[in-house]
Amino acid sequence: MLLSRFLVDQQIRYGVVEGDQICSLEEDFLSGIRLTGERFDLEEVFLLSPCRPSKIVCVGLNYLDHARELNLSLPEEPILFLKPSSSVIGPKQPIIYPSVSQQVDYEAELAVVMGKTTRRVSATEARSKILGYTCGNDVTARDLQRKDGQWTRAKSFDTFCPLGPWIRTDLDPENLELRMLVNEEVKQNSNTNQMVFGVDYLISFISQIMTLFPGDVVLTGTPVGVGAVKPGDNLTVEIKGLGRLTNWVKSEGI
Amino acid sequence: MLLSRFLVDQQIRYGVVEGDQICSLEEDFLSGIRLTGERFDLEEVFLLSPCRPSKIVCVGLNYLDHARELNLSLPEEPILFLKPSSSVIGPKQPIIYPSVSQQVDYEAELAVVMGKTTRRVSATEARSKILGYTCGNDVTARDLQRKDGQWTRAKSFDTFCPLGPWIRTDLDPENLELRMLVNEEVKQNSNTNQMVFGVDYLISFISQIMTLFPGDVVLTGTPVGVGAVKPGDNLTVEIKGLGRLTNWVKSEGI
Repeated sequence: MLLSRFLVDQQIRYGVVEGDQICSLEEDFLSGIRLTGERFDLEEVFLLSPCRPSKIVCVGLNYLDHARELNLSLPEEPILFLKPSSSVIGPKQPIIYPSVSQQVDYEAELAVVMGKTTRRVSATEARSKILGYTCGNDVTARDLQRKDGQWTRAKSFDTFCPLGPWIRTDLDPENLELRMLVNEEVKQNSNTNQMVFGVDYLISFISQIMTLFPGDVVLTGTPVGVGAVKPGDNLTVEIKGLGRLTNWVKSEGI
Repeated sequence: MLLSRFLVDQQIRYGVVEGDQICSLEEDFLSGIRLTGERFDLEEVFLLSPCRPSKIVCVGLNYLDHARELNLSLPEEPILFLKPSSSVIGPKQPIIYPSVSQQVDYEAELAVVMGKTTRRVSATEARSKILGYTCGNDVTARDLQRKDGQWTRAKSFDTFCPLGPWIRTDLDPENLELRMLVNEEVKQNSNTNQMVFGVDYLISFISQIMTLFPGDVVLTGTPVGVGAVKPGDNLTVEIKGLGRLTNWVKSEGI
């Protein structure tokens, strides 16, 4: 099932995507799937980020090759950081290039969306707490990341967390082809089976520390091939079976 | 004015504290101050964290002496990190000591509570966006902070962000005596006039990066004197003119 959040007639709605249509829901799918009977063409609605997380927990250096390209050693345990909910945008919305940075990078990632309150679960229990998966882009001001040491500022700018286009619930997260395209040129091309720590382990690990709530997002790390963007670029995260998340880069001043 | 959030008859209410009483409000003070006419004795209610931030933005190494005690150099710009909203607790609630850490530290801090949506304001404009101030304790698993390099895991455990007892709106944040008492023994004793970056500058700096929303919290850093706690300890953050925030430490297993 594909779950979406969208704008139609200036109202925020929730829906189930079927082919090129959306079947409207009575309320947020986190509260249950009840169809209203209304249908919209996908083309006539504006897709929003499919969820509004209370927090976004991110995992650093979770693909061996990416750690190597940053000259960082692989951690024994997952390295966590947070992106603020204020950084979330949906498909087709602009990523604002802040004037304070000279190098903004894309990072294609598989985003896990939680379906249930999750606290201290085992890796075996983790899967039952997950609602589904979507595409994420962990946009990063690389120069500020290096300067600060702490990664928060570099990854927390408004618009630095595109999510979408929808949440797919019936998917095996452990063998998904994952690509980043800049202006339709492939820049990252990997598979989630290259993760150092798998999805179930990550959810279990994070849930020992902090309670995850329905709609919360875990970004699972990016593979090798990160690189800089410039205003005007089109960035597309593509995950097989999940679809494409496209955003364009806009200069702060314009 | 002292603004509070509290529990009475198992209902969450908002109120204005006057002496040893609370004047009940029709709704969250973030939506406006409208009294219901009801009054409760402070003793008969249970105070909650005075706000429910969508994010908690924290500033590292913002007192010279604290940077020295950690053997870290003073940053040119504020070093930011985030605590998740799931870590917030109110007064008198237990701080859970996680079994994965061997050293959990207290950190007394002045907490700034935003009153308005705040984006790209100057330091001069910042003050008008602030609702008020409360006491905060940036509880930190120091061993995990050192191990991870990134500070997020160490500072994100459930219960690691006590806030309270209430928000004071009429206060000059730049000259406040700030103390931490462990079992009533003074461990930190400083003044917010010792901050490297002042409140107005911090709000301006953060608002260039991410939009702050009403109820969001900025923790402004801790002075020299941080130290370890053990289960059973009583931790009190005391800020002159603001009152006392007391929590006790509880072992994870019990």
